[in-house]
Amino acid sequence: MGSTPQKEPWQSIAARKQAQRESKIPSEWRIPQTLLPPPEASVVQDFPHTSGFFTGRELTITESTASDVVAKIAAQEWSAEEVTKAICKRAAVAQQLLNCVTEIYFEEAIGRARELDVYQKQHDGKTVGPLHGLPISFKDQFNLPGVDSTIGYISYADKPATTPSTLVQLLTSAGAIPYVKSNVPATLMMGESVNNVFGRTLNPRNRSLTTGGSSGGESALVTFRASFLGVGTDIGGSIRHPASYTGLFALRPSHGRVSYQQAVNTYLGQEAVRSCAGPLCRSPADISLFMRSLAAQEPWLSDPQALPIPWRTELEILPAQLCFGFGMGDGHVTPTPPLRRAMEITKAKLEAAGHKVIDFTPHEMPEASEIITEMWSADNGQGFQRDTDASGEPLHPQLERWLGHSAAEAQLKTGEKPQSVFDTWQNQHRRALLAQRWLERWQATAKETGTGRPIDGLIMPSTPFPAIRHDGGYPWHWGAMSPLLDLATGVFPVTKVDLEKDKVPADWQPISAKDKEVMEYLNNSLTSILHADGRPENHSNALIGLALIARRLEEEKVTAMLEVMKDVVGIDY
Amino acid sequence: MGSTPQKEPWQSIAARKQAQRESKIPSEWRIPQTLLPPPEASVVQDFPHTSGFFTGRELTITESTASDVVAKIAAQEWSAEEVTKAICKRAAVAQQLLNCVTEIYFEEAIGRARELDVYQKQHDGKTVGPLHGLPISFKDQFNLPGVDSTIGYISYADKPATTPSTLVQLLTSAGAIPYVKSNVPATLMMGESVNNVFGRTLNPRNRSLTTGGSSGGESALVTFRASFLGVGTDIGGSIRHPASYTGLFALRPSHGRVSYQQAVNTYLGQEAVRSCAGPLCRSPADISLFMRSLAAQEPWLSDPQALPIPWRTELEILPAQLCFGFGMGDGHVTPTPPLRRAMEITKAKLEAAGHKVIDFTPHEMPEASEIITEMWSADNGQGFQRDTDASGEPLHPQLERWLGHSAAEAQLKTGEKPQSVFDTWQNQHRRALLAQRWLERWQATAKETGTGRPIDGLIMPSTPFPAIRHDGGYPWHWGAMSPLLDLATGVFPVTKVDLEKDKVPADWQPISAKDKEVMEYLNNSLTSILHADGRPENHSNALIGLALIARRLEEEKVTAMLEVMKDVVGIDY
Repeated sequence: MGSTPQKEPWQSIAARKQAQRESKIPSEWRIPQTLLPPPEASVVQDFPHTSGFFTGRELTITESTASDVVAKIAAQEWSAEEVTKAICKRAAVAQQLLNCVTEIYFEEAIGRARELDVYQKQHDGKTVGPLHGLPISFKDQFNLPGVDSTIGYISYADKPATTPSTLVQLLTSAGAIPYVKSNVPATLMMGESVNNVFGRTLNPRNRSLTTGGSSGGESALVTFRASFLGVGTDIGGSIRHPASYTGLFALRPSHGRVSYQQAVNTYLGQEAVRSCAGPLCRSPADISLFMRSLAAQEPWLSDPQALPIPWRTELEILPAQLCFGFGMGDGHVTPTPPLRRAMEITKAKLEAAGHKVIDFTPHEMPEASEIITEMWSADNGQGFQRDTDASGEPLHPQLERWLGHSAAEAQLKTGEKPQSVFDTWQNQHRRALLAQRWLERWQATAKETGTGRPIDGLIMPSTPFPAIRHDGGYPWHWGAMSPLLDLATGVFPVTKVDLEKDKVPADWQPISAKDKEVMEYLNNSLTSILHADGRPENHSNALIGLALIARRLEEEKVTAMLEVMKDVVGIDY
Repeated sequence: MGSTPQKEPWQSIAARKQAQRESKIPSEWRIPQTLLPPPEASVVQDFPHTSGFFTGRELTITESTASDVVAKIAAQEWSAEEVTKAICKRAAVAQQLLNCVTEIYFEEAIGRARELDVYQKQHDGKTVGPLHGLPISFKDQFNLPGVDSTIGYISYADKPATTPSTLVQLLTSAGAIPYVKSNVPATLMMGESVNNVFGRTLNPRNRSLTTGGSSGGESALVTFRASFLGVGTDIGGSIRHPASYTGLFALRPSHGRVSYQQAVNTYLGQEAVRSCAGPLCRSPADISLFMRSLAAQEPWLSDPQALPIPWRTELEILPAQLCFGFGMGDGHVTPTPPLRRAMEITKAKLEAAGHKVIDFTPHEMPEASEIITEMWSADNGQGFQRDTDASGEPLHPQLERWLGHSAAEAQLKTGEKPQSVFDTWQNQHRRALLAQRWLERWQATAKETGTGRPIDGLIMPSTPFPAIRHDGGYPWHWGAMSPLLDLATGVFPVTKVDLEKDKVPADWQPISAKDKEVMEYLNNSLTSILHADGRPENHSNALIGLALIARRLEEEKVTAMLEVMKDVVGIDY
């Protein structure tokens, strides 16, 4: 009596969290042992169709787009309850195959769906809002009452939220139903969704690959058709990389268009570069639905950081002929063969459809990466370290490398000078100058496009390589510019890796040491690391998307241009 | 030969800058010795009328509003050249009486005016834009090619700008004519416009008073009718305090509505709290003219920090009955008698006009002051010190006190821990929470207003006292909230100090030690410090304005509400 309680080991907390999660999967949605693919089975994307575990109607429902779902429910063809149950079941299966879920909210979701069905019946078919009955999945950062938002920190466990994040409230008011939260990297600041609380998320098209990060749980859910639309966040590629790796449509909006209030975050209070929330889904129309429905809630009346800009449908009307900039790399690193092929497919199809394409190499991107890395590291990892150390769990080796020290070394390096506040001001000023140069160069393309306008968008890969193997790390990526300059950026799918076509040409010459490193990294992955059966370990069957970068706060135009990409480029798999 | 040149003493640089300035005043605009008011003459506001130094037409032109001027020029009743010459002459006189100017740009302005007149003649009376021919004055932060932007630092002298600030370009494209730049406090971070380069700016209605700061040169120019409209900036009251002290209309817009790109600034790269540029003028219609004309230039296509929000004229249409919150202080400090009277006048007149008024005490303001002070001081004065030390000039004693150290002490205090980057993140997060609480409380007033809406604006003083004596310092002010939460805020004139009416009541009781300090400060000023002739030294004849605070990015509504204030409240002097 009076003795200090022993601190629970972090492994025990993790085991408990995972057991809780499992317990929330109803037994009827647990995959029977006889149907369960063996751990070494790489491709599980087709499981819902091949296993016989789903009814035809469940498959039809879950493979619909969000726009279809709200239309069918509004027309009372489907009930919110059956839609919710179907998507919850598919999410339960996704979790068992891909480990993509953090918190399960099935019971609450089905309860809410029933309420919505009752409301609709009692109001002559009227819906509560434009998202009536649509289940939406949320990255683990968004609070749902009664469950944790650990964002991969053991120390955040067992602290259930009491109030929903503002975005959750706004979407719920529009009729949406939160039903699951999805996995992230520890600290959110890695490109692969793995952490000590919930483990590692796998890619359904090749489980030896990642679905990216930090919104990798969302990209897994949506690509597996276990979510119609998921909300991710992005401060350096965290929506764009996962969506590109899994062949989704997505939007990284500019700051102030999608509420981020009362979301859990690493770097709380860091405002030099903003993480922004946005949708990952399977149709540009769903992005429009999400953004329109959200803006109609006037988020600026509950979130002071939301901009009072309605969804400007007039900006979704595009000129007949568009002109795109084409960024085949940044002049320092070039895309690897699969991405290069995706770029060429896109260019050829756009031109065939009467659009124009001009070269536009974003030479500014390496500088953007330098500036943003200083911003991410401005506290010298103090936040990461504090919240990691709080539980005794180890910091992920990638984070240690990234911060340039191991936890032990950090103790010894206290003499090393961290960034001062004054340093951060100089770095922010450097960004302001870069932003001005970038906009000037963008506007100056009006002289080249022949449309009388500057380029309508810049098309380029989000990373130089397709979905990477687990713990592969990112030797280079092009994620910095959009968050650093707050550019509205979309993602669209183009093709999938083709091991025959995507070989490094024999006469290929690197344009820099980093370019060589990136190509060797991919080349090794494609040819050297083989499974027992001779298949290359990596990239096989991975989908490939590209990013479409516009100016700041051009979300409507980007969404409309993604529709063009869907129509014109399609996806050739 | 080969010897290091001696560094020029700062006093010599200042003398040279002042001599250059004087040399740019044409001899015919120098006030003859016979007409010059003696230095001890307090009130010089009427000099243009009483001296006979101006023609009737010059007086008519310079006393017009900006809206009148552009209308008369558009109608070819006045030429741009005669308007420009008249206002330049009045600015020359203002400089001689008030020391409110930094850089004189008369020759360039008159040249530009002639070009505009020629353009108009050659194009059948067509103007180049909505500001065709309107001379505009700029706070010294804005670059005009060929002249310095010292912002009060000796070390910034002799570095003439090569390109204009983006705002200058945009306004010039709309037809405006830059003709003068105006004085500021050293470092911009004091409430009184005094510095070692150009000296001290005086208040034309009482030269022993300040016109405030940091946009104190602008408030002097506009109140003296030596500018139709001046551009100031505000990160803590720097538009609002000067406008309140001189009886002007003004707008501190939210960030992103008035370009700040390529402006010189102290704290370059500091982005936790934003300085915003905005107009000071004599009519709300002129604010609307300025903002409309600017937005029509689509600033977001040349300034990446500008928001793509047009001037939404539909938001200038107000409901017939408005309801205002009334903040008689912040619950910690109350307004002194002159400000209290201004509040009461405003309330009575609004109610008489059919509007509603409810009490709304912004208890959050002291916390806002704490947070913003941390932001302003986050580099521990490193920027101030560097740019002050570069010339050998002394840091102003007020700044030394504010930063909590003298230059000499700073050397000794290197062991003292400055804010870490991580500390600044905690402070920024604290702001985010405050912003949310503030908006929630604002919205919740909908239950009290009886209009079905929350309060349309919050009326309160900008400082607890009217224009202070030189070097009086600010024991307290209410400038923090608007920049900290980026609230659209207007200023309107109400009355002037009345030494008979504005006595501290005998039974007055302070609500806090700070409240007592503020009242004693004012009471001493009103009664104790007397001129030789027995007149109280301070506040006499000072105008009094109030602030009108709205939500973020409600500039159109604020401007329209200022029009209501003009119509309903007027000014009773």
